[in-house]
Amino acid sequence: MPLTQSLVCLILEPAVVPLDPLPVNPLTPDPLAPWRGPLARALHRNRSKPHSRYAQLATLSAHGRPANRTVVFRGFYHHSNTLMFVTDTRSAKVTDITQTPWGELCRYFTQTREQFRLSGAITLITADAADAALGQARRERWEALSEASRQSFHWPQPRHPRSEDPTAFEGSGPASAFPDPPPSFGLGLLQPDAVDHLELRGNPQNRTQYQRLTDGTWAMQAVNP
Amino acid sequence: MPLTQSLVCLILEPAVVPLDPLPVNPLTPDPLAPWRGPLARALHRNRSKPHSRYAQLATLSAHGRPANRTVVFRGFYHHSNTLMFVTDTRSAKVTDITQTPWGELCRYFTQTREQFRLSGAITLITADAADAALGQARRERWEALSEASRQSFHWPQPRHPRSEDPTAFEGSGPASAFPDPPPSFGLGLLQPDAVDHLELRGNPQNRTQYQRLTDGTWAMQAVNP
Repeated sequence: MPLTQSLVCLILEPAVVPLDPLPVNPLTPDPLAPWRGPLARALHRNRSKPHSRYAQLATLSAHGRPANRTVVFRGFYHHSNTLMFVTDTRSAKVTDITQTPWGELCRYFTQTREQFRLSGAITLITADAADAALGQARRERWEALSEASRQSFHWPQPRHPRSEDPTAFEGSGPASAFPDPPPSFGLGLLQPDAVDHLELRGNPQNRTQYQRLTDGTWAMQAVNP
Repeated sequence: MPLTQSLVCLILEPAVVPLDPLPVNPLTPDPLAPWRGPLARALHRNRSKPHSRYAQLATLSAHGRPANRTVVFRGFYHHSNTLMFVTDTRSAKVTDITQTPWGELCRYFTQTREQFRLSGAITLITADAADAALGQARRERWEALSEASRQSFHWPQPRHPRSEDPTAFEGSGPASAFPDPPPSFGLGLLQPDAVDHLELRGNPQNRTQYQRLTDGTWAMQAVNP
């Protein structure tokens, strides 16, 4: 559906403070967004590269600067357009997100030379989650982790001076002995409301922007790269 | 040089508003920072991958959300620790940086599985640069660009609805006919004052943080990953 020029400008130049209240439940089923097809194709075509699951997550730190680090994409939550990543709740990004819930995930696929930018609100699911479905989602992600990944949540406080205790990084025995996720395990849920897809191949490159509208549908627009 | 616990805390938890005035000239010669060695090694070991020159730059957008996109690393400015990237001055990141000069560049090297996060102030050099050395740096980067890259600065306004004019993306003839950079060409200079290096290989992983001190020297600290 082509957009009028005025709507496009609305999409490209958001209002000064669009800090809408966060959705009540980020796991609400949602029709498949139109950018899911191109993203699924990119994931498929780049599947031989383990790093195709990596992406860079930008947040706003408490001291007012943007922060940026690599996270591992853990798939979409059932029947939604919500992207999942796991995090140590002792990490700086958790402090960032608790104060300012907005983030932008940048995924560059090296094989197909295309970039997806996914911007939206992030919800953090910790051990305190009151909502049963959110707590269940966190447990499911914990169970899906490798033994090595689970152990890392038992390591000493991240970013503190390197522990000199050689046993500090051995974890706490086999993870199977710990069926429940520890308090340090958090699940991050990013609900994009704006997506920007750039394909570097071709001359000129193709660029498409998607914007979630208030009724939950998506507008899309081919734009100049 | 090992740091005391209190200094480490200062490094890890910056003051609430450390928005120091920007340095007068980002091209001031600077002794080689201690993170330059590890970064040079990573660039060398990953040199077979063209995308080892790519990195994700996080900025703060005018509407208060973090923004994140891939940029190409264009090397260091002579005798400094200042990283260079080029940008179309009509892009959103230029608006971001003009309002809030802070950025964090995240570079993940796929071959050696290591990440560098470089945080600092960004200076944009445009056609209006009053400083002769900054103007010269911009011209040098323009001259170093490929013909195809130069042409892209003559394309129609980025993020506007895709131009239907097939000739709009043909550029303006051979770049050699345009020895001077167009107004759309900007040079970005990132001066890191905090660097975080994470090596995923090894168990546990190695992580080192570097902080530029007010006297221009750097503190470094091995931390828990």
